[in-house]
Formats: sequence, structure tokens, C-alpha cells
Amino acid sequence: MRHAIGAAAALILSLAPAFADEGKWLPDQTGALAPALKAAGLEIDPAALGDLKAAPLSAIVSLGGCSAAFLSPQGLIATNHHCVYGSIQYNSTPKRNLLATGFLATSLKDELPAAPGTRAYVIEELTDVTPAMNEGVTDALSGFDRDERLEKNRKQLIARCEQQANRRCDVRAYYGGARYYLQQQLEIKDVRLVYAPARGIGNFGGEVDNWQWPRHTGDFAFYRAYVAPDGSSRSFDANNVPYRSKSHLRIAREGLKEGDFVMLAGFPGSTDRLRTAAEAEFYYTSYYPRQQKLLSEYSDAIARATAVDAAAAIKYANALRGADNIKKKLLGQLAGADAARLIERKREAEAEFRAWINADKARRAAYGRAVSSLDAVVAEANAALAAAQTTGLLSRAQLLAAARNAYRWAQEREKPDAEREPGYQDRDRLQTIERLTAIEKRFDPRVDRIVFEQALAEYRKLPAADRDAAFEGKLAEIGMDRLYTETKLGDTKTRLAWLDRPAADFEASDDPFIQLAVAMSPGDLALEKKTKDRNGRMQKARSAYMQAMLDRAAAEGKAIAPDANGSLRFTYGKVTGRTRDGDSWAPFTTIAGVLDKDTGKEPFDAPAPLLARARAGEFGRHVAPALGTLPVNYLTTVDITNGNSGSATLNARGEFVGLAFDGTLDGVIADWLYEPRTNRTIHVDSRYMLWVMEKVDGAGRLLKEMGAD
Amino acid sequence: MRHAIGAAAALILSLAPAFADEGKWLPDQTGALAPALKAAGLEIDPAALGDLKAAPLSAIVSLGGCSAAFLSPQGLIATNHHCVYGSIQYNSTPKRNLLATGFLATSLKDELPAAPGTRAYVIEELTDVTPAMNEGVTDALSGFDRDERLEKNRKQLIARCEQQANRRCDVRAYYGGARYYLQQQLEIKDVRLVYAPARGIGNFGGEVDNWQWPRHTGDFAFYRAYVAPDGSSRSFDANNVPYRSKSHLRIAREGLKEGDFVMLAGFPGSTDRLRTAAEAEFYYTSYYPRQQKLLSEYSDAIARATAVDAAAAIKYANALRGADNIKKKLLGQLAGADAARLIERKREAEAEFRAWINADKARRAAYGRAVSSLDAVVAEANAALAAAQTTGLLSRAQLLAAARNAYRWAQEREKPDAEREPGYQDRDRLQTIERLTAIEKRFDPRVDRIVFEQALAEYRKLPAADRDAAFEGKLAEIGMDRLYTETKLGDTKTRLAWLDRPAADFEASDDPFIQLAVAMSPGDLALEKKTKDRNGRMQKARSAYMQAMLDRAAAEGKAIAPDANGSLRFTYGKVTGRTRDGDSWAPFTTIAGVLDKDTGKEPFDAPAPLLARARAGEFGRHVAPALGTLPVNYLTTVDITNGNSGSATLNARGEFVGLAFDGTLDGVIADWLYEPRTNRTIHVDSRYMLWVMEKVDGAGRLLKEMGAD
Repeated sequence: MRHAIGAAAALILSLAPAFADEGKWLPDQTGALAPALKAAGLEIDPAALGDLKAAPLSAIVSLGGCSAAFLSPQGLIATNHHCVYGSIQYNSTPKRNLLATGFLATSLKDELPAAPGTRAYVIEELTDVTPAMNEGVTDALSGFDRDERLEKNRKQLIARCEQQANRRCDVRAYYGGARYYLQQQLEIKDVRLVYAPARGIGNFGGEVDNWQWPRHTGDFAFYRAYVAPDGSSRSFDANNVPYRSKSHLRIAREGLKEGDFVMLAGFPGSTDRLRTAAEAEFYYTSYYPRQQKLLSEYSDAIARATAVDAAAAIKYANALRGADNIKKKLLGQLAGADAARLIERKREAEAEFRAWINADKARRAAYGRAVSSLDAVVAEANAALAAAQTTGLLSRAQLLAAARNAYRWAQEREKPDAEREPGYQDRDRLQTIERLTAIEKRFDPRVDRIVFEQALAEYRKLPAADRDAAFEGKLAEIGMDRLYTETKLGDTKTRLAWLDRPAADFEASDDPFIQLAVAMSPGDLALEKKTKDRNGRMQKARSAYMQAMLDRAAAEGKAIAPDANGSLRFTYGKVTGRTRDGDSWAPFTTIAGVLDKDTGKEPFDAPAPLLARARAGEFGRHVAPALGTLPVNYLTTVDITNGNSGSATLNARGEFVGLAFDGTLDGVIADWLYEPRTNRTIHVDSRYMLWVMEKVDGAGRLLKEMGAD
Repeated sequence: MRHAIGAAAALILSLAPAFADEGKWLPDQTGALAPALKAAGLEIDPAALGDLKAAPLSAIVSLGGCSAAFLSPQGLIATNHHCVYGSIQYNSTPKRNLLATGFLATSLKDELPAAPGTRAYVIEELTDVTPAMNEGVTDALSGFDRDERLEKNRKQLIARCEQQANRRCDVRAYYGGARYYLQQQLEIKDVRLVYAPARGIGNFGGEVDNWQWPRHTGDFAFYRAYVAPDGSSRSFDANNVPYRSKSHLRIAREGLKEGDFVMLAGFPGSTDRLRTAAEAEFYYTSYYPRQQKLLSEYSDAIARATAVDAAAAIKYANALRGADNIKKKLLGQLAGADAARLIERKREAEAEFRAWINADKARRAAYGRAVSSLDAVVAEANAALAAAQTTGLLSRAQLLAAARNAYRWAQEREKPDAEREPGYQDRDRLQTIERLTAIEKRFDPRVDRIVFEQALAEYRKLPAADRDAAFEGKLAEIGMDRLYTETKLGDTKTRLAWLDRPAADFEASDDPFIQLAVAMSPGDLALEKKTKDRNGRMQKARSAYMQAMLDRAAAEGKAIAPDANGSLRFTYGKVTGRTRDGDSWAPFTTIAGVLDKDTGKEPFDAPAPLLARARAGEFGRHVAPALGTLPVNYLTTVDITNGNSGSATLNARGEFVGLAFDGTLDGVIADWLYEPRTNRTIHVDSRYMLWVMEKVDGAGRLLKEMGAD
């Protein structure tokens, strides 16, 4: 019974590394996990798991927002269907709807450029740089100066790292800034779409089955990384050749069965397990409920606006899918927080931790101040977040967002590169160009205006202090009609040209979106300054508070996994179903379920060849012995979140056995509070992938390349 | 695999009485089921099951919309919590919210009058009156005259039956009018609320769990039937005494276990399994999707309008709950129709049946004409239904509906009682008064105007031919403001007084809703005449078409259960879970699931005493031996629909083992097409009822009365 677990017990469980279904571990923490890993069934040397230079970690790829892995020596990358969705959409037209039909390149030369901005990042280094980051950071600094100093140190570390050609580096905060790691990745800029099954496989079940079990989705697809013939990274070029990675994952000959050990590494985006109780309360009683409402209104508006316009529908398919996904996740989080009594338990655990600090004079002296400072700055941050939730909606006007971005580039370009704000340095230019270009495939002025007007209606409900009179005045002067009829930013060439023009040109422009952007700039900059000051104070308080937690854990011989922040993490668990009172989930679904759910109508419209092969029982070597048929999806206890999508799942021998692609709706509360009882990850089974490739889509070329033919 | 079942096989299955999980049988059909009942596990004499004068059927009660049963010799009636919801609401105020707290009368004199209009009907007769109904009905009659003649015959049969005091009689059509049965019921007019557990038991899980499994809802409550001291039925009177029924159900000493035989009798409202393919197509591609949309808009509007008005929220709680329930059911039906390929299978089965008719000259001669006539009149009816779907929304204006109803009464009263339209005869007067009275607890002018305006917006989208110019002209002349500020119909006394005034008073009235009603009357009457003509032709074609089906079944030694029509039906099945690929439902849920789901927040807010007793494991004699704990809900294969709610479930010995209260969302397609694989009924276990009564609510008085202490 959940409620029987007292606060202290819950806190200790959440900190104990032995309880290892929980934890998105840093590679350098895996050493400490070795006994637990062996006990859980790992058959290879645990020491290898922390080594970025060797398999399996050297085969792990980030797609920036999704995870992936090399499955062949020729740069073949496996990831989720929903992770390449944007690239399928980018290559689709109303007449050639690759979303519906799927896509298979029959040779290298048929592989299609991925959507602009698509990158594959290969991890090379992940190094603790805490001392370098803290250089010159003293308690005497104001919040603003502290933030600036940290930013300066960060930029220096990144600049030094990126002196190496084709490298992308970042420095992220862990434990609220108690630690910093430099992550170095090889940046591959030519990524191509190789193979994606039909939507009726890759997104079988669609929104209806999203976050649900039992699940029957073939959520997999393949990219390929290309580089110049000399091995250096460069953008798309006909002469580019497949990238040869340090290692690639081998396809398991034997698939998984119930109880088997599994592990994966990937790039989980963000979790909030180490947040304070006041933050949990703010998010669950205010921010999330409102976000849910705003997203519903947004996706309803898009759905209505694109209902009878096939071209616009394709342009906004990705936005709609994204909104629906977040909406459903929010629903699960809110219900999950109630079910888990999140706020109450956070408060109890926090009280217990703070009592531990107060129980000792030295600890009180060391951390007491951090507690009160953190609470004060959290209150400030919550208020600012509530306002930003509304002002952020204005970015739904894509040309306004482009104009603001271009104008800020013009302003920042007046400084030396090293002094510019992150996001406006030379290293950011190519991605900016690609983002500004991609608008042409995702923008429709009629739909854009509808969602912008919706955003403005919300904006106007803000108190005057949170609004920008200069923006409102300028908008009233221009009027919505002129905004959309007179702007030239809808033209990609024109839009891109602004990226190179000086600030004065913007200030003199008569393009209405540019004028709006110029009017908003002083307000934007003032707010940014305020935010930085708060961030500096937040970093100071939170890093000290977290240091207290780390000290306590160390004294007790325990480890704490840091919250996810988009950097490489390792997690492991086992294949297992789930039982609730009156209901029991099997660990595997099978092809019988696909046939059973199929209605011939989206989203349950498996392609005819799949249905025919399945009905004929042509499963060959892909049958799971314990099931006697073809497995489709399976459940495990590995601890993932958004960003882990596409993570290659490995068995006890480090071999590829599938791809993680989803969680279940009542498990998403795990981002805030891990519940071993309910937290399950859903994977597509490698046997289903291979069967679809072999029997349905005829992807023999790729099977051979992976050594799985 | 579902798709492997051919059309012919599917049709035969759906007709075969041996496949008896399907079938809402007439009592006089149970004789033919005797071998199947014995084989299924029935331990008592099957012959007894068809006898209306003896237990168990003589203990079965209709509440008009819900089913129920006597559980004591003193008129104690068990039914679902959601069936007495209106009465709990009626007795609640913002200060004394019985919905939240529950209600238990500590003695007879504390029992509260149920909501106006509440009746308990005790079944006495169910007799085939087909020949009497067809007297004077010849092929030469026009549709209108046929309908009038049938109506005249029906009214005569009813009038004759109701010459007996306190009897309510009706004559319903079976098999589209190929058969008619007269149903005679004792009408008990003084019904009182005896006991309802708190909402956190009776509606635990609320809308979230509605139509779902696993389920943990204590959906039970008790009424009591009262009569005059001389045993005659009369309305509430302080001197009334508990009714002594012919029989009552005995509480089973041993509860159910997996695989056990169960049966129930009740009053299923309406099913459509014998409809044509064209009707299925109309409902599933047009009518239901639109109804879903209209209901969503309606309940959204009410939710918004009552969000900050507790008194209005209580008034509209029932309407909201009803809309939500239907919405969810529609969702399940639409998805279920896709999953079952309803339209395709209806077409296949229909083609096979029509081929059977055409394969034989005599059959072609006998039924050929009925086929084409039925198709033609179905097309006509579908078009009329589509328009009525919109015009019917105008009744959301409660005072307008009251005014139209009262004016029609005035018009009908000018005729002798026997010639009036059904619903406007003296026998209907008391219910009309109660309905007009109940408005005072369910009407708020602000909310009413909002939903009326929403209805008008829809109405104005209709083509002119489907609208009523006189209504629109009068409404424009009056204006919405005057409508609500000047009407006196909001006052109950005034509203009721109109029921006795002559038509001329209406025509001279300056009450704006009365004026509207008068303006609408000619259009209403013209439409009614058209509808009657179509109904007459429909009855002629459909009864002939159904006779062909009955003839075929008889020739093959089979029976066909008629579609549900609100009359008494019998169904049986067994306690069993359900398995889908990757998921498996246990047949029982237990108290552990209540503790597990409880969040302390609505709808998962079990009362503190329940939680305390449950945590302490105080289950005593109510433990199910096979489960080792207290069961809460269970699943069976019995074939029910709306109207069966509250049906007492009986074991193989005819003893009370619980109450049916819901189905599952993917099984609601059963109203159109029964799927033995998916169709499950959810019951509250009698052991849970008794435990709550004994350990949580202290209802010892009732337990003793039922002989269950």
C-alpha cells in the first residue's frame, strides 16, 4: 500500500543507488553501480559501460531532442519513427504523402536530405569542469554579475572545445549548478532519411494509443550520417560519403524474454525530481493546468483552421502532433501527482531533509542560508514563469519570432563573437539559417494569424506590468491586416537576407513584423537582465542546497542521480509487465494484437502487405520462443523521459534488442517522483523491426548492412 | 481472429439461442432456453424464470429508466447509486450536500421523498397482443391512417388494462411491429430515499473510471416503496406504509467466484441489432458523430456557466452527468463500430439474408416488396432524423419546452380522453405536473439562456425548409432579453396553473415563452402528421421484413431475441475476465484497488471511515475465499444496456449477489452488434455492499431487514 511508506523511507529509497530501476546515471557513476549491474544480470564488464571511446557508448547518437544509435559501420542510424517525423513531413507533398506510404531508399543515392537543422551528434567527451566554471565566482557578486561570470566561463570552455573542427560542445549544470560537465560531440550536418515504415506501422494506434498499454506500434526508422570524403563534417553535398563510426551495435540473435536485463544510454531532456516542494506546488496547481488549457485551445484552433486545407494540414501536422503529445502527458502528470500525493510527499521529504540540516550546528551554519535564499528566489521565479507562460505565446507568430531573432542577431553582431549571448555566436549561425528556412514548410499565413490572435487574446489578460506597452502600441498602429498583407518575411530569401543586415536597417524598415520586433526589443532586453540576475541568485542558492544533499548522500555511502538535462545518461532495468488490482499487463504484445486492433482506418490502418504476411503466419526466425509468435512491443523498468525517444535498448551482452519510444500515462509523474510500481518504458522489439523490414517492406539492403539478414 | 468469421457465420451466430451470452430474452422465451440454462449451471427450475407471479421475476422493479429489485418484505428496493442520483440531488442544498456526504435514514420516518416523478413499477403481466393490435390494420390504409389505427388499438388496450386501479400499462412493438406485447405494472407513486453511500463510494472514480475496468465503484443505493394503509397506491402521504411485495430476493450467503453462472432480469432501454445496414451507416457516419459534437458543446457551456455558482452547479449536475455519460458512450460506439467493422458486416449479413429471400419464389413474393419499401422509408426517416437532431435542441430552453407542453395539453383537452395523443391523456397528467414542478430544482435562467442560444445557433444553420418561420419571426419580435425578463413561467405555481387553462388563454397571453409556444404549434402539428404517415409505412415494411427473419429462424429451429424496448427481459452468462493481446482483466477487483486509487480528491475520495476499516483489514464474513480479501466489482458476460442499470444479479440458486451498473467502453458497440469477445457487464459485488453497510455506514437496520445481518 503506497500510503504506508513514510516520508523518510520514501526519501531514502529515492536516493539509494541499490534501488537501481530509478536513476539516469552519468557515465562516470556507472563504476559505483557495478555490483548492482552484475546482480541485475549484466553479462559484460561493467567498467566498459562508462567508456565513451568504446562500444556501446561510442555507438550512441544524439539527434538533438531524440536519441539514436549506429547499427552499421556505414553510419546507419536507428531511431524512432516519431523522431524522423519532421523529415518525412519535410519530404512530403499533398501528392506524395510519405507520412502515409512510408519511404525506403533502394540505394544510397536515393536517400533523402532530412529536414533542415537535422543533426547527428556523436558523443566524444563528458568531463567534470566544475572548478573552471567557478573561477571568479564569489559570494560578493550580484546575481546578474554571477550569472554573467558563469556565462563567460561557460563560453570560454565551449570556445576552447570547439576550436577542434566539427565539434559541438556544451557545458550543462547538474544538481542546480553544484556540478558542471563539458560535453563534446562530433556534429554531423548531412543526415539523410533512409527508411521509415508507413504511418500505419510507425504510428499504428496514433493518438488513441499514445502513452497506453497494450501497444502495437512499430515506432522505428533509419537515418544515415554523411560526411565529406576526407571524413570531415559538412552540410549536404552530393559527394558526401557515409560516416564510419568508432563502433556500432550488433543486432542480438536471440531476442528478449520476461525478466531479462536491459539497459540503454541516451539523452533524457529534463526531469524535476530534485525540485523543492514550493516548485512542485506551483507547477501542479498553476503552471501545468494552465498549459493544458492553452495547448487545447491552440490545437483546436489549428485543427479547425486546417480541416479543409490539405496543404496547410501537412504544414501543421508536426505542431499538432507535438501539442497533442504534451497535452496528454500533462493530463497524466496532473492525475499522477494526485495519485502519488506528490505535493504532500515532496513537503514531507523536504521537511525531513531540512530537519537534518537543522539538527547539526555545522550543517546549519553551512547550508541554513541556502534554504531560505532558495525559497525566496523560487517564489520570485514562479511569478516570472507564470507571466512568461503567456508572453511566450507570442512566438506562435512565426514571422514575428523570426524578426525578433534576426534583429537580436544584428544587435549581438556588433560585439566580438566571444562576448555575444549564447545562441548568437558564429557557432549558432548555421542552425539559425536552417531554422529560418524551415519556416517555409511550416508556415501558412491564415493559420499563423489565427494562432497569433489567440495568443494576443491571452496576452491582453495580463496585468499591465507584465505587458509591453511599446509592443501593444506598435501593433495597434500597424493593425493585424497590414501585418500579414505587407510583410515580406513570408519569402524565405527575404527572411534570410535580414540575418546579415545591420540593426539600423531594421530600425528604418517598413516591414510590419520587423517594426514590431524593433518595438519589442527594449522590453525584451530589460526582462532578460532581470532574469539573469534572478538566475544568478538561483544558481547560488540551489547549488548550495544541492551540495547539502550530496554531502548527506556521500556520508551515507549513497549516490544521487542528477536530474536529466539533455546530456548522456545510462539507465538499466528489466523486462516486466505490471499488475494493478483487477488488471494485469503482459510484458510483451504480439502480432495478434495488431490484427485485432486493425480497423482499416487511421490510426489503426496497418498496410495490406503486413496484414497478409501476419495472417499467413510468416514470422520465420523472428518468433519469440516463449510466446510462440512475433513480439511487437515490450515493457521494461528502465528510467527514461522525453529525449530518450529512439534510445537503442541493449541486452545483458550489450546487443541491440529494440528501441525505447514511450512511457505510460500513469507513469509520466516519474519526471517529478519515481514510482517503481507504475513506471514502465515501452519499447519496439528488434524482432518486429527485422520482420517488418524483411517481410513487409523488403529492406534487405539494410538488413544485410546491419549483418541481420 | 475476428476477420476470419465470414458474413454468413456471423449472422448465424447472432441468431443462435445456444450462443446465449447474447440475448435480452422475453420471459416467454426462457422455456426454449431451459437446456442451455441447465448446461450453463442454473440450479433452480428454469420454468420458474418465465413466471411473472413468482420469484425471482415478481421481485423485479422498474424505476422507469433504471431497473431494481425488492430485497425485503417491506418494500426495500436496491438499485444503483447513479439511479437515485436525481433524488439525492433533489434533497441536497449547497449547505446540506447529500451528494458528497451520502444519506442514511435511521428510521422509516426519516426516509426522504424521492425526486418528483419517481415511480416504482412492479411487473404483473406481459402478454402477446399482436392480433388485437392488428385489428382493422389493412394494406389499403395510408401510412397516416395505419399509424392512427395502431395508435387507437394501442390506446384501447391500455385503457382497458388501466381500468384496474393503480396500474400502468403499455403496449410496445417487438421486431419492428411484427409482435406487440401488453405490459401491466403496478405503479407505486410514493418512493422514498432510504440510503445512499457517499459519492466517494457510490461514484468512486467518477467520469475518469466511467465505462472502464478495473473498476472500484460502490454503485448501490436503496429506495423504499410506500402505499396507503389499505395497500392501494397513492402519492406521498405521511400515513403511507411500506409496500409488501409478492416476493423479495434473498441475499446469497456465499458470494460469486470466477466461472459462476449469473442471470438477471431488468428493463433494457433500447438496442439496434435488428436495424438495416443503411440505418447503421446513417447513425455511425452522421447522427452519432454530430450528437457527440453537440453534447460536447452543451456540457462545455454548462460547465463554464456554473463554474463559480454553486447553486447553479447543483441544479445542472444531473444534466452534466447525463451528457458526459452519453458522450463517453458515443465515443465507445464510434470506435467500436470501426473496430468491429460494423457497417461492412451489417451489409454482408443483410446481403446474405436478402439473397435467402430471393433464392425462393414464394419468399420473394411474400417479402420482396417489404425489402424495397423498408429501404425507401428508412432513407426518408434518416433525413428527418438529421433535421430533428437540430430542432430537438430547442427543448433545452426548459420554459419553452414547458410552454409547448402546456399548450398542447390545452389543445388535446378539447378532445375526449380516449382520442387524445399519448402523453396527453388523464393518465399522463400527474407525471406532467411532477415534471413541470421539477424544473424549479433544475432551472437557472442565466444558464438556460446560454444553452438556448447555443441551440439557436445550430438551428439557424438548418436549411429554411427544416426551420419554422413563424417561430423565428416571433422570437425576433420578442428578443432574448424580454424572453427571460418578462416570462412568469419561472415561478412553479404560475407554470403549473397553465396546465389547466384553455387554448384561447395561451393565444391571448403576453408571456413571451407562451407566445413562442403558440407560434410554433402549427409547425409542430404539421410535422407530427408527416411523421405519423412515415411511421405507418415504416411499421408496415419493417414488420414484414422482420417476419421473414422470424420465419427463417423458426424453420432452422432457432430463436431471435427482439431488440430492447424498455420492457422486461431476461439475460444470463457467467463471471469471467477478459484477455486482449498484452493485457488481461481479472474477473474481480478488490478493496486493495480502492486504497490504491484513493487520492483524497474527487473522484477518488473514499470516505475516511472506509479507508480506516479497509486499512485495518476488517472484512469479516465478506471476504471472498478465492481472493482472500473483500471483492468490490466483478465482470460477467450478461447482455445488458442502458435501462438495465440497477438490475439485481442472481446466482445459480436465484439469490442476490450484486447489481449490474456499467459496461466497458469497447463493449458498448453491443447495442448494434454483440461481440462475445469484448462484451462485459460490470457489477458491484453484494459482499462489498454489505461490508459498506455494516462497517462503514452503520446501516444495521437495513441489513437486519434484509436478513443479512
